[in-house]
Amino acid sequence: MKAAVLQDVGEVHVADVPDPVIIEPTDALVRITLAAVCGSDLWPYRGHEKFSPGDRLGHEWLGVVQNVGREVTGIKSGNLVLAPFAFSDGTCGHCRDGMQTSCVRGGFWGGANQGGQAEAVRVPFADATLVPVRVDAGDDGLLRRLLPLADVMATGHHACVLAGVGPGRSVAVIGDGAVGLCAVLAARRAGAERIIAVGRHPDRLRLARTFGATDTLDADDPATVAELIDGTKGGVGSVAECVGTQSALDLALALTRPGGTIGSVGVPNGVHTVDLYRFFRSNIALRAGVAPVRRYLDPLVTDVLSGALDPSPVFTTEVPLGDVATAYQRMDRREVIKALVRT
Amino acid sequence: MKAAVLQDVGEVHVADVPDPVIIEPTDALVRITLAAVCGSDLWPYRGHEKFSPGDRLGHEWLGVVQNVGREVTGIKSGNLVLAPFAFSDGTCGHCRDGMQTSCVRGGFWGGANQGGQAEAVRVPFADATLVPVRVDAGDDGLLRRLLPLADVMATGHHACVLAGVGPGRSVAVIGDGAVGLCAVLAARRAGAERIIAVGRHPDRLRLARTFGATDTLDADDPATVAELIDGTKGGVGSVAECVGTQSALDLALALTRPGGTIGSVGVPNGVHTVDLYRFFRSNIALRAGVAPVRRYLDPLVTDVLSGALDPSPVFTTEVPLGDVATAYQRMDRREVIKALVRT
Repeated sequence: MKAAVLQDVGEVHVADVPDPVIIEPTDALVRITLAAVCGSDLWPYRGHEKFSPGDRLGHEWLGVVQNVGREVTGIKSGNLVLAPFAFSDGTCGHCRDGMQTSCVRGGFWGGANQGGQAEAVRVPFADATLVPVRVDAGDDGLLRRLLPLADVMATGHHACVLAGVGPGRSVAVIGDGAVGLCAVLAARRAGAERIIAVGRHPDRLRLARTFGATDTLDADDPATVAELIDGTKGGVGSVAECVGTQSALDLALALTRPGGTIGSVGVPNGVHTVDLYRFFRSNIALRAGVAPVRRYLDPLVTDVLSGALDPSPVFTTEVPLGDVATAYQRMDRREVIKALVRT
Repeated sequence: MKAAVLQDVGEVHVADVPDPVIIEPTDALVRITLAAVCGSDLWPYRGHEKFSPGDRLGHEWLGVVQNVGREVTGIKSGNLVLAPFAFSDGTCGHCRDGMQTSCVRGGFWGGANQGGQAEAVRVPFADATLVPVRVDAGDDGLLRRLLPLADVMATGHHACVLAGVGPGRSVAVIGDGAVGLCAVLAARRAGAERIIAVGRHPDRLRLARTFGATDTLDADDPATVAELIDGTKGGVGSVAECVGTQSALDLALALTRPGGTIGSVGVPNGVHTVDLYRFFRSNIALRAGVAPVRRYLDPLVTDVLSGALDPSPVFTTEVPLGDVATAYQRMDRREVIKALVRT
């Protein structure tokens, strides 16, 4: 079958790889229908994160089950299934705590594992990992609305959970990438009263407005911090940091009110220093975490199916699997927010 | 009057300084009865924190009101009063949030402000800062039980609040100084089921047992981390970090279960790096903060008066104000846990 692999920095190839097969009795094989390219896929692509040539790519996908191992009971061939970006056994202590990304036998798609930018994938712990969704596999619009739940929508939601966003609260969302935009959606869904989107791209900040942002600020404008501190009488109690860079974390710290919380979900690449004294002096909590997406999938799927939630506008381009390299190039140049891949 | 001042690294003098006077109509003058030396007083004493020669010392004290400004309504001459280690106006947004240590007009005792290791002190915002306690000022045992609330007991409590300690929870307390020992008391008071004290001094860990620790571990034993991870099936959900050094924070991180929380109350002196990726990977929250003691004083005073709480065993020596330099020397050499100063 075909699968996207990273051959070198900036070099994505679509390679012929062995077809996946059932290995463990708890596995499932899924024919992938839709996948996506994530901002975090760009870290190794840009050489900012280690990889081995030939590493598989992609951790956001949905598809149709082709075959299941003999111990799989909740999933069967023909089911349309959604997967979180990590697989997990569902039974270890961490999974039972709702921390499926820390599963002792789990892992992440891509790298040495199989990836989602491919025609098919072997899914370990299929019963625990996959969420079957009763929809028409031909309803393309609905599938596009569901796909962001695999990562960016659930990650934006996690930022809000970590930052303690709730009814009536004020929240600043740092980052206007797909995760930041989804955090705006999540904040609105959680009942936040004031949602301040802080980004660098006017077109993305306009989308943030349609997603529910009540205010938008330019991350590069030196007046931004003073403006937010002034407008909120001392900063906001909840900041969703959706970038993962040093400057984004520093900005988050500057915007947080004493006693407030930063929910940080950007993979912390290049974050070298955290001035703990600034957190200490103002009792600012730092809750950084990779989203345990599996924990959030059921309620998010329910909201997409009911029409209450639609994160699909984050997809601003679409390519066939054969052209996935183009999607990486365009996202790297920030010409598009997020690319959908048809496999 | 007499007041302790820091003349140079390792040099505490008892100097003649001007008597305090009422300056603002919201001030009170308090004749100090008992004071204490804090572990954090040792930072400038050791030259690990900046100071100016002649800086006043001491932020833990209680005493009897001598005089009040004309706008003070809740405190009067003759009241025995307890003070938090920071004064605050009680009216700004941060005070209303319960973040009195971030008060826009507040400050901390000592340094350029007046200190508590002295015969008397001028108290700004007396109504908001001071807590009158209806006790016999001659009941020395009771005063000794109340004095730790000014800092170490309230700070230990704050560590537990930050770390999310509650009924049935497991908590590790890092540090067997006065704050760590008080965090053990606070964890028991909060209903924790398992309280694991991690320290370096067998005598202090024995005291931790009498304060409610169910387990004690040696911070320097290389087997400690594995033992705790094993004994708790993956680490504890709440860690109270009561030291503030790099090694204590690293140990806290190693002991925290994925999804768990570190409540860090040690002044972060010498903490240069925080590996954010480790927090991110395991969804570990870092909640560092100087304790907003004023918020906690009323319920803690209630428990001391009822006999439910007694942190006074942290005082293992006692000196008159004239000999306060000895107390610094002995605490610096770790010969005593905490010194009480009679003024």
